[in-house]
Order: sequence, then C-alpha cells, then structure tokens
Amino acid sequence: MSESFSTSRPCPLSDVPGWDLEADVLIVGFGAAGASAAIEAAESGASIALFEVASGSGGTSAMAGGDIYLGGNGGTSAQRENGFEDKTEDFFRYMMMAGGPDADEERVRIYAEGALDHHEWLKTQGVPYRNTYIPGKPVMPGTGDCLILSGSEFAWPFKEEAKPCPRGHLPEAIGETGGFFLLDALTQRVQALGVDIHFDTRALALVTNEAGAVCGLVVVQAGQTKFARARGGVVLSTGGFALNEEMLRQYAPLRKRLADDGLSGGYDDGSGIRMGMSVGGAAIHMDELFLTLPFYPPESHVKGMLINDKGSRFINEDAYAGRVAHFIASQIGDQFYLLVDDAIFEQPSEYSKIEIAAVGETWGEVEAELGMPAGTLVASVEVYNRHAARGEDPLFLKDSNWLKALDEPPFAALACHLKEAYYPFFTLGGLSVQPTGEVLTTDGGVIPGVYAAGRTACGLPRWGKGYSSGMSLGDCTFFGRKAGLSAARRSSE
Amino acid sequence: MSESFSTSRPCPLSDVPGWDLEADVLIVGFGAAGASAAIEAAESGASIALFEVASGSGGTSAMAGGDIYLGGNGGTSAQRENGFEDKTEDFFRYMMMAGGPDADEERVRIYAEGALDHHEWLKTQGVPYRNTYIPGKPVMPGTGDCLILSGSEFAWPFKEEAKPCPRGHLPEAIGETGGFFLLDALTQRVQALGVDIHFDTRALALVTNEAGAVCGLVVVQAGQTKFARARGGVVLSTGGFALNEEMLRQYAPLRKRLADDGLSGGYDDGSGIRMGMSVGGAAIHMDELFLTLPFYPPESHVKGMLINDKGSRFINEDAYAGRVAHFIASQIGDQFYLLVDDAIFEQPSEYSKIEIAAVGETWGEVEAELGMPAGTLVASVEVYNRHAARGEDPLFLKDSNWLKALDEPPFAALACHLKEAYYPFFTLGGLSVQPTGEVLTTDGGVIPGVYAAGRTACGLPRWGKGYSSGMSLGDCTFFGRKAGLSAARRSSE
Repeated sequence: MSESFSTSRPCPLSDVPGWDLEADVLIVGFGAAGASAAIEAAESGASIALFEVASGSGGTSAMAGGDIYLGGNGGTSAQRENGFEDKTEDFFRYMMMAGGPDADEERVRIYAEGALDHHEWLKTQGVPYRNTYIPGKPVMPGTGDCLILSGSEFAWPFKEEAKPCPRGHLPEAIGETGGFFLLDALTQRVQALGVDIHFDTRALALVTNEAGAVCGLVVVQAGQTKFARARGGVVLSTGGFALNEEMLRQYAPLRKRLADDGLSGGYDDGSGIRMGMSVGGAAIHMDELFLTLPFYPPESHVKGMLINDKGSRFINEDAYAGRVAHFIASQIGDQFYLLVDDAIFEQPSEYSKIEIAAVGETWGEVEAELGMPAGTLVASVEVYNRHAARGEDPLFLKDSNWLKALDEPPFAALACHLKEAYYPFFTLGGLSVQPTGEVLTTDGGVIPGVYAAGRTACGLPRWGKGYSSGMSLGDCTFFGRKAGLSAARRSSE
Repeated sequence: MSESFSTSRPCPLSDVPGWDLEADVLIVGFGAAGASAAIEAAESGASIALFEVASGSGGTSAMAGGDIYLGGNGGTSAQRENGFEDKTEDFFRYMMMAGGPDADEERVRIYAEGALDHHEWLKTQGVPYRNTYIPGKPVMPGTGDCLILSGSEFAWPFKEEAKPCPRGHLPEAIGETGGFFLLDALTQRVQALGVDIHFDTRALALVTNEAGAVCGLVVVQAGQTKFARARGGVVLSTGGFALNEEMLRQYAPLRKRLADDGLSGGYDDGSGIRMGMSVGGAAIHMDELFLTLPFYPPESHVKGMLINDKGSRFINEDAYAGRVAHFIASQIGDQFYLLVDDAIFEQPSEYSKIEIAAVGETWGEVEAELGMPAGTLVASVEVYNRHAARGEDPLFLKDSNWLKALDEPPFAALACHLKEAYYPFFTLGGLSVQPTGEVLTTDGGVIPGVYAAGRTACGLPRWGKGYSSGMSLGDCTFFGRKAGLSAARRSSE
C-alpha cells in the first residue's frame, strides 16, 4: 500500500481510512533540529510523536564536529573569558554578510539577539562546554576545547564590516565527536520528556484537509502503512538532499564538479523538502552548497598562495576554507594549486587528498614543471612576494598575519584539483520558512500546519561563499526550537 | 473576489460556483510559446481559449531579435546555401554542452532531430526568411538577413566537441524587429484558426479536482472573476520571472550584481511558474539567468583582452558574449576591463555603456592609471601578446582568428563594470517538464492536466554559461507546439 504514496503528493484527508495515532505535534527526523523541536514542544505541554527513519537518533548532526556559531550581547562565557567582547551588532552584521545577497534579516536579528540565551539552553539540556579557546585556524581540533575561529571573521571583506571575533563553540568531547556529544545530550532530554519516539519509520506523505492545511502524516513502519494525525502541526526536519543525486542534478549542478559523496548520516534524501513542496511550499536557494577544501590544517598553509591553472590568484587565502572552495569552483578549469615554500610546507592532512604536483629550486622551475606558459605563475608570485614582504596584499587584501614572501626554496605546488582533492559538501537550500518555522509559498503565504527546520529549511546559512562552521547546527537547534513551539501552540488554538 | 485567489494556491473544484467558459485546451500567455501551442492544438481539432494579460499578443518574444537556433540533418536551406553542412550529431552535441551539467538529453535529441521540420513549420505559418548569411559575430544586425553565428560554436571548448557552424536564423525583418515579425505571423495564424482569444485577462489560479488533476483556471477580466474549464489541460506559457524582484531575490541572487531591469515585454512576473508550483510542480535551475555583456559590436573588440581588477584574464574572449558575462560575474570584484590597442579600437555601441577608463602609450601607463599594482596587467598583456603574435593562446584557447598582439599604441582599458555597463538578463529556470510539456513533481511524477512551455518551463536553455542566441525562441516555438498538442490529445482521451 505504501507504493501508492509519494513525498511529492499530499494524501487527501478523504483517503485516510482512520488514524493509527494522534499527537499535538508530529516531528519527522531526529537530528539536531527535530530533537530541539521535540524538547521545546514537549516542555510547552504538547504531546509529541517523533518519527525517524534510522534505528537511532542523531542524523547528520551527530556526525558533525558539533560546532555551534554563537556570540553577541557582549560575548559568551568562552568569548569573554578569552578576552573577546562580541557586540550583538557585530555578530548581526557578520551573519548578514555570511547570508549573502538574500540574507534573511529577520531571522538573523532574532538569532543575534537570542544566541546567548540559546547557549544557556544548550547547557541546560546537558551539552557539556568548557570555556577554553584554541587560537589560530583549527578545524575540528578534537581536544575538547570550546572556542574556535570557525569562519572568515578576520578576513577581507568581513573584517571591514564587523569587528572580528571567534564564534565557533564546540562541546567538550573526546576526539572529533562533538556532534555525537551534542546529539547524545539532546536525545537523552527528548527521552526524559516522554516523547513518543518511532525509529525505523519512514514518512511517506503529508495529509491535507479540504482547506489545504496539513493535518497529518502517512508513515511506514515494519512494512505497515500508518496514519498519524497532527492536532497542531507537522515539523519537517529530515535534513537536506546531499545524497539525492537526482535532486542534486536538478537543483545544484555544482555537485557535478565534485568527486566525493555528500556529507550525511545516511538519510539526506530531500524527503522533507519534497513533502513541503507537495503542499505548495517554495524551496529556495536550492543551488547553494556548503562546500569546502581542507587545505589547512596545517595552518601554515594559509600563508601559501592559491592559483588556478592559468597561474592567477583569485581569492584571499585566509578566508574560511568553505569560501575559498567556492571561489575555486567558480573558475573555468578544474586544476588548482597551493604554492608553498620550504618555510611553510608541512605534510597536508591525509583526508584532504592534497598531493605534491611540482617542486623546484625556483618558481620558474615549478611553473615549467606544471606546464604553464613562462611568466604566468612566476609573475603572480613576484607580485605577491613583493607586497607580502611588506605585509601587504593590494590584490586580495589577505590579512598581514598570514602574509610572508614565499622565497625560501625549495618551492612546491600542491594539487588541490576539483575531483581529486577532498571537497566535502552538503546542501543549504530548502523550504522557505518564517523564523517561526512556518512554511511559505512563493508569494509569502503561510501553509497552515506544516513547519520546517534544519537543512530541510533554507535557514541562516544560505550562501556557500559565506558559510561559517557552526551556522548550520546553530540554525538547526535555535530554529528547531521555534518550529516545535509554533506547532505546539497551534494545537491549543 | 479575485483577492481571495492566489497563483500560489490552487482553487479546489468544490469552490468553483460554475463554469463561465469551457474549452479543450486553455492557454495562459500569448507569446511565442502560447501562440505555437494554440496553433498546434487548434490544428489537431481541439477548441482553445487563450488568455493574455496584455492588450495584444507578443509578450517578451516580440521584443527579441527573433533569432531561432536551428540546424542538423545536413543543414537548413540557409546553412546549405552558404556552404555549411550541419550534421545532427554536431548540432546535438553542441546543444548538450550548451545545456550544461543538467542538459536534458531527451529534449535535446528531439529538438536536434526535428529542427529542420520545425523551420519548415515556421515558414508555413508565414514567418519570412531569406537564405542569406552574415559572417563574423553580428548581434541583431537588423539587415533582414537570416543566418548568423549566435553562440560559442567556434570557440573553445565547444569547437572541440562539435563541428562548428552558424545556427542562428533571423526572420526577414526591418531593423532589429525580428521578434515582432515572428510573433506577427504566429498571431495571424492563431486568429485564422478561430482561437477564442481573451486579452486583458489575468490568470489568478489553477483549478484542481479531488484527484489533484488540473481541470480549469480562474481568471479576472474587467474586474470580474471567471472560471474556465479545461477538458484536456491548461498550458502555462506566461514567460519567466525577470520582473519579479521578490522571486529573483529568492531564486537568482546573481540579479543583485546587475543594475538594469530584466528583459521583458512587461509581464514576466513568474505567475505561470507559481501556478505550476502550487500544484506540486518542481521549479528547477531557478538560479540560472541568460546574462550578457554586449562588448561587441564592434566586432574588432573580440580581439581585445578581458581582465578583472587584479589584472588577470579569466575567459576566452571569443566565446559568446553571454558566456563571457557569466565568467565576469563569477569573479570576486565588480570592475572589469577590455584592453584594446589602436588597431582594434572602435567606439563601443552606445547601448553597451562601455566607457574608456584609462589610456596610455605603454601598458604600464594603463596599469598605473587603473591603480593596479605594477606587474599585474602588464604581465598578463606580455604573456598574451607573446603568444597571440604566433596565433596561440595557451591559457584560454581563444581561436587564432581573434588573436593579435595588442602592441599598437595608444592603448586603452574600456570599463565593463558590473552595475555600470549594460548587462541585460532574463530567467532560464522554470517548471520541470517532459518534452511533451507535462509538468513534473520533484520525484518525476506527472501532474495531470497541466503543461508548461517557453520560459515558464526549464527547457533547452538551462545554463547561462552555455546559452546561445536563438535557443529560447527555438525552445518556445518547438516545445510550445508539443505542449499544445499534448493538452489537446488529453481532451480526447
């Protein structure tokens, strides 16, 4: 019977033979967004049924480093203890820039003003945090320390618009497992609140009534199709579509430039987005990906020079690696090189799949070994070195902290080729939603009874070139709570 | 009463008080796609009602140059008479490349095999064509001649995959009014076939029955809401969303880099796309724009060198200007320059808004006047000139026909800045459709009774970097016919 349902077509109420279960709020997906929605809704007194396709909680969130982007209001305890005062306006402006040409001002404002309270909420749920800070540009340090620089805050053009400050907050965890610790705490809290959890349950379709409002959900459990009634609403928090190659093809063709699979806990098939679209929800910015190239660590490589296969630079290398990767993918070729000298070279991390492409005692030798015409790479290095020696970068405004002349032989070009180096990605596009989680049509109308959160929605992070680590989990947990509460409130209307 | 309807929400059949009119096929929009749909449906014996928001036919199509992209099967009469043999496979391969990472192979195949017949069909409708050819790279020549090179056929990388050939076919027209002549012929044919035409009529919403099939349309006419029943189907051919700033913001943020309004006959508000989405249709590649920079004519400027504000080249300048414009918009800055020497300089066309930014007796003087660091622009010119003198471009593989050393002073940099020069655009994203025009959900299911054509659909042109002039009107007319016929056939099922 489940064959006859589709996430792309709502099930009319008249086709529901009877309700197998009923709750104020139905939540689809038990990652960070779904867990946060469940906690907030349950605490408001609503009854919840939570459906998860996997056999346990966590989703893609649990595989992440666990970084949450927080600041404002003078700073979190970790920021303040380490000497960073973070004004709400700087936090706001940075996130507006990071959101790109269609940054959601209302959402960013609410988040900027509420992030400190949200941090306290996370602690209350049992997420463990130290107040320690790791300077530099660490990526998933795995030390259990908290505060890291996780974006482009100190890089042009961001530093010119907003006073820079590190804002990535990692849970105290063993190794690179912060996401697991975060989800473990949220899961325990969901269980303690008595939420009715259904694992191994796949959502098949939304149920709509005659007025077009969402009033339930069709699921399949152990081969049985079941009908669940939502008195308040259905929260869609099934993640993005990083594993749905058909959707990637239609919506995010940038994926074709990449070799690796999307980052996912295994179920980012876009089903939540499709269910939202099936009732008229607009899916926006579907072409945007989080995309990165871990060309650091080693941190010293930020002092290197990135060039395309014409020998030209195209970005300030001290921007967040996710921003750098997008400018790589905007160039016409597929081959890219990080130029390093003996002073800054260290073995690249193994997972980055960055190999040495050419070495030489002069940059001319490297240029020739790469098969580039004479005067291309060499001219770029000459201009870079001349200014870097003075701590300047007139072309791309790289910060002086990361500038040094690349003049200590031997020299090397490290291959950062698209399709060869490791370019992990996940999707940023999703359903257009209010900060309340209410799903919107293209002309801004609210579709009653359906909410979206996490990467099923197009949230705070919606522009790959502006993404900073921690923005997605920040959005998942903060706006997951809002969506859960909105759905709960609708049940008591 | 019309206040209560929305293009983003279908009207349930149960809300229809009664039908004001009825036809086998309802068509929304009387541009090239709608006219072609009407002709084909009427010729098959179906009754048609055609609704157009404007007071006359034509839409955005009538404002175009009228170029239609045609070839294959050995060549059109204009191609053959001018010595171009155009094999179907070359035509097919070029269009596959032009379609980009998600080119629609089935659609391209059908078009490649049917384009010659389609050309004959256009002639039969009364569209006038000569068999004359204008060599070089003309843009809207306005001479009444037919065949022009309208894309990147002779440019890298296209020329390497498909034997090049000019394929743009212009109607015989007075001045740059080919689109008007094309639409005039199609309009007369629609009228001659007795189609029931309703001008000054705005479509408000689709009507859906209990099964979710589209069975009618709500329109407003002289302030009166009317309900039209479709026995076969509704064809949506209302154009794109080049004038809908809200949709552009949500879907195509590239628009923010541009100063000018979208190219439109005045009604590209995305209403057809929104109506399709309201019944579960997937709108795909909504971020893709046709975008161009008319840096030629004068044609001699193709021999110039385009650089960004870092002094770097980034594209072979002999590619179609639309492809060039996209690579401009992919760079990090907003300032771009076309470098010319005395031998190739001519006054840019007035509408291009390209001004002289700097002049000098040496390239060093130009570099200094532009405020670029020493050794940037000069190094790029040196590499370019050294190879161009030998007819080579190892970096970007510009064709030797357009290569010459820029070594005859005085030299100039012409400003092609985004937001200052003229960058016209229209939208390429739209409803996902079968070649039959049937609208699809995200998981590929057909939504019964609704069809889309022209820029309301995502058709042949779906990748700004590959667009060639004539592809949109080719798609509008060819697949408009298919959509009309599909809807007509459904009425007799």
